[in-house]
This record gives sequence, structure tokens and C-alpha cells, in this order.
Amino acid sequence: MIALDANGADAGPATVAEGGRLAGGGVLLFGPAAALGADAVDAPEAIGAGEEPARAVRNRPGASIVQAARAVGDGRAQALVSAGPTGAALAASVLNVKRLRGVHRPAIAALVPVPGHPTLLLDAGANAEVRPEHLVQFGHMGAAFMSAVHAVERPRVALLSMGEEAAKGTPDVVEAHARLANGTLNFVGNVEGGDLTCGAADVVVTDGFTGNVALKVMEGTAKTVVGAVRDAVRSSAVSSLGGLLIRRRVGALREQLDPNAVGGAILLGLRAPVVVAHGASSAEGVANAVRLARRAVDERMVERTAAALEAGGAMRSVPAASVASRHE
Amino acid sequence: MIALDANGADAGPATVAEGGRLAGGGVLLFGPAAALGADAVDAPEAIGAGEEPARAVRNRPGASIVQAARAVGDGRAQALVSAGPTGAALAASVLNVKRLRGVHRPAIAALVPVPGHPTLLLDAGANAEVRPEHLVQFGHMGAAFMSAVHAVERPRVALLSMGEEAAKGTPDVVEAHARLANGTLNFVGNVEGGDLTCGAADVVVTDGFTGNVALKVMEGTAKTVVGAVRDAVRSSAVSSLGGLLIRRRVGALREQLDPNAVGGAILLGLRAPVVVAHGASSAEGVANAVRLARRAVDERMVERTAAALEAGGAMRSVPAASVASRHE
Repeated sequence: MIALDANGADAGPATVAEGGRLAGGGVLLFGPAAALGADAVDAPEAIGAGEEPARAVRNRPGASIVQAARAVGDGRAQALVSAGPTGAALAASVLNVKRLRGVHRPAIAALVPVPGHPTLLLDAGANAEVRPEHLVQFGHMGAAFMSAVHAVERPRVALLSMGEEAAKGTPDVVEAHARLANGTLNFVGNVEGGDLTCGAADVVVTDGFTGNVALKVMEGTAKTVVGAVRDAVRSSAVSSLGGLLIRRRVGALREQLDPNAVGGAILLGLRAPVVVAHGASSAEGVANAVRLARRAVDERMVERTAAALEAGGAMRSVPAASVASRHE
Repeated sequence: MIALDANGADAGPATVAEGGRLAGGGVLLFGPAAALGADAVDAPEAIGAGEEPARAVRNRPGASIVQAARAVGDGRAQALVSAGPTGAALAASVLNVKRLRGVHRPAIAALVPVPGHPTLLLDAGANAEVRPEHLVQFGHMGAAFMSAVHAVERPRVALLSMGEEAAKGTPDVVEAHARLANGTLNFVGNVEGGDLTCGAADVVVTDGFTGNVALKVMEGTAKTVVGAVRDAVRSSAVSSLGGLLIRRRVGALREQLDPNAVGGAILLGLRAPVVVAHGASSAEGVANAVRLARRAVDERMVERTAAALEAGGAMRSVPAASVASRHE
């Protein structure tokens, strides 16, 4: 069962519910019953993008994202999907789904939408500042996702830096490089920003500040360039047939670069898969996110992450009492 | 007079020399006299991209970039242009051109090659880690450049972050936001990665790690998207005339996005303008870099930077002895 937060999508709760149906059901829907009918657990309250996520999640236990995360926490569902704000989904998940044992910090992972070269970038914004041991864990979390969900064997893990040499970057990045090079992952070294869109690695690890900027630069540049091409085609004196064909090709390219096609961001390092679909998702976008979450459950992504962290000696060492507690 | 390092360009010293001629002369050329003739100060030795810049510059006083920087330091030339490695140009400049009084750290600035919206991004890689006061100085340095060289009145200065709210980002970014908001610059607040290519600001300030990644992501994404469009056009069954027109348009777009057209990176915070042309520069690319350096001299960019730093209370406070020394 997948817990599905019906609030938050720009297109409204009915579109999210439709996405759940398109994905083949097996969905526990949280949203306004007035609009969605008896199939939904009534949760009309939504957390907005402008709210401080941690506070909103604590103060509003009835909000749909909080109820949906709680359903995962208490075992009624095995994964969570939302098209609402990423910050709220992350805060609700940390509180209710909880961190995976031994994980320092959950991360936001994004599949870079470049045709033919799926590259997972993390952290894409959960942690503005990270330590080297966090970056190492991100590597394990990302590799387990690509291996479980995208069937990539021994995913190539790279570290985002200012140059390919091991000594390039901040002291924390240099230290992370050394740890990754001596670890159990298939570490291929540093990559630069330009390598993100050329398939140089399957997983690219960075801090949440750099990752957030990189992802948004990529989206912004793709939009600007595709827009300029459309303008060029439109103003060209091409025959109407030729122009039509080109416009179709450019349109197809735009769809390949569309975040909707990818299925959204994935929160990693939690005790269950959490997928955050783009706010602008169509019903098909939501359905893709639900399918992604289901695949992560079926392929035991979380268990594989835990095993990889343990085998790689990358677990957070914590006092025994804290390990035993569900409320660490 | 502009000191021009003839080594370092992929196309060789003769192409760089040709660039100097195209820019209208007034150039003091440093390179292999065997290839360039009597017009050049003989400096066959080049510092390669693989060398550690600071050490190479210290150990090889005869290298062309070091000789050229020394010519600026001792007043034989008023600005420096090189198509060699940025690191070597920066190290040679810090040693011989020297930091502008009151500047913490020079920065690498890059003009984002988006048609119609010239946006200066700095630091693009000189300083992997920065403090808030460095970011404030980068704002002044970038604004003085855009105002002097690109005739932008009261340039809009923005801070690159993970969100538009003042509280978003690392603690250092949040602190820099507060200082910039209370300063003398035309500060327009935080921008996100997607705003870099849409003309939201004239100057975007960030640390060298993030700036380097952002710039390379932009170049890589533009290349990937333009390549995909070309493939689409090629495989389209458009009439040969229509296809030719589209190819011309896409070619023109690629040229607009070409680093050559911009004239290279600019090192700011030094006692003279230093321009680093792209290694792949053509003669015309080198000529653009020389023209840019000349404009910075003519428009008194360095003096305006010093005045802005002083007026904005953004000078580094240093012991009197250190200020007096040319070897600080």
C-alpha cells in the first residue's frame, strides 16, 4: 500500500487521486473527502510552500502530509508519495517515517532528466551544510536506489567538485574523496558541473546547497535554450511542413527534459521510500511517482541501503540507548 | 598598453598574437620569439593546466604568464590578458599585479553567455570557501565591473542561494544577505540557480565552489540541449531548404552561447584588470579579451572598485604595516 497525499499539487486533489488510479491502485489517499469521496481518508488541511516545514508539521498533526507519513510510520502503508512542498514532506517523514538506523541525515535525490543517461544527484537541498561522513552516506543511499529501482549494477558513484583531481574542492570535499576512494562503493572520483548532463556517473554526491543550485541551473538553462530554439524555428522561413516537424521534435525534447516524466524527487535515508512529485505534476506525473515508490518497496531499496551502509562501515555510531529508541 | 601572454591557447602563440593585432595593437606580447619574431618579449616557457599554480608561478619566473604579470606590476602595462590556465593567471597576478588595497581575496568573474541578459557570476572558482565579508566584497567588485565595462547603471546585485527568503542557505550566506541588505549596493536579495539564465540580476555573488559548479552545469546543459536539437533537426524529414535554415539558426544560437564571444573570465580585486580568455579561443576570442581589458582600463574599473569598497565600508581592516607593504 502506498500512502498518497492528495493536497499540494497545482492541479488539485482530484488530479492526484486520478494519478493513484492510473498507477493501478493499492493507494491509501489522504485529502479532502468533500472533493474525493469515501475513497479518501479525510484530511482537508494542507501545508503550504510558504510555511516553515518543521514547525508546521509539529503543529498540524491533521495535515494530509502528516497523516500520510504517519500511515507509513505505523505500518498501514509501505511508502509515501506527495506532490506538495518538499520541505513539508521531508519534515513529516523525519518525524513519522523516521531516519533509517545509522543514517546521519536524509537527503533529497533528483534524477537528472537527461535522455539516455539517468544520473541521480543528491543532496538536492535537504542539508545546506554537510560533513564528509554525510557525503559518504549519500553515496551509499544513492547507489542503493539506482541499483534497486533502476537496475544499475554496481552504480558508478562520483563526487561533485571543482576539478577531477582528488585535492580539488573544499577541505570537506577532499576528505570525502579520500573516504570514498577507500570505501566499498564503485567510486569513480570527482566530476565537474559539466559532467552532470553527460552520463559520467550514475550517482553524483554533493552538499544540499550546491546540489540545489546545480539542479535549478540545469532546469533554467534547458528552459532558456529550448525557448531560444523555438523562437528561432518560429521566425525561420521554413516550409510549413518542415516547421511543423521541427516543432514536434523540439516539443518531444522538452517532454524528455520535463520533471514530470521522471517521477519527482526521492527522499533517501528514511525507513521507507518517500517520493515527492513535482507540484506541477499531471495525473500521469503522480502515477509515475506512485510507480517509483512501489518499485522501491518491491525491490527492497531500504533494506539494501541499510546492508550497504553496514557493509561499507558507513553507519553513524550512536549511543546504544539512542539506537534502541524509535524517537532518536 | 596590455600585457598579452601568448602561451596557453589551444590554437598556439601565433593565434594569440593575431588576436592582439585584431584588437588594434597596443599590446606587449610575451611568448616564444622563435615563433613570434621580434615583436614578442622572448618567453617560450609556459605553465600547464596540470601544474600546481602557486608553486609553478614561484619557481618559474621566466614563464610567459609570470613575465606578463610582472610587466603590469612594474607599470610597463596597465592590464593583463592570457588564454592559459586560470589558476596560473590568478597566482601570477596575486604575486605580481597584487591585490587591491582592502580586498580580502581576488575572485574569478564570468559573464554568463545568455543572449540579451549579460549576468556576471562571481566567484567562479578562485575561492572554494568564503566568509560573509568576502561575498560582500565580491558584490562591490562585480558591480564596479558591470558599471565601468558594461555601462550598467546601479547594477542589481543578487546572492545565489537555495531560496529567495533571507533565511535560506548556509549560515554564511544568511549572514552575507543581512550585510548586503544593509549596505550601499543595489541589492535585490537572493536568487536561485534557475534565475542565472533569465536576467534576474546584473551581478550574482557566490562562493567559488558553487560558482564553478553552476557555470559548468550551465555550459554542459546548453551543449547537451543544443546537441539534442541538432540531432532532431538532422533526423527530421524537412525539406533541404528548411533544414538548412534551421541549422543556421541553431548554429547562431550556439555562437551566442559560446564562451569565445564573451571574451573570457575576469579576475577582480587586483590592482589592474586581468582577463583570462578561454583556452579554446580563436584569434577573435583573444581580441575580444584584449578589448575587454582595454575598456576596463579606460573606464577606470579598478579605481571605481576601490572607491565603492571604501564608500560601502567593505574594506578589509589590516594592520598599518601590511597596508604599507607592496608584499602583503
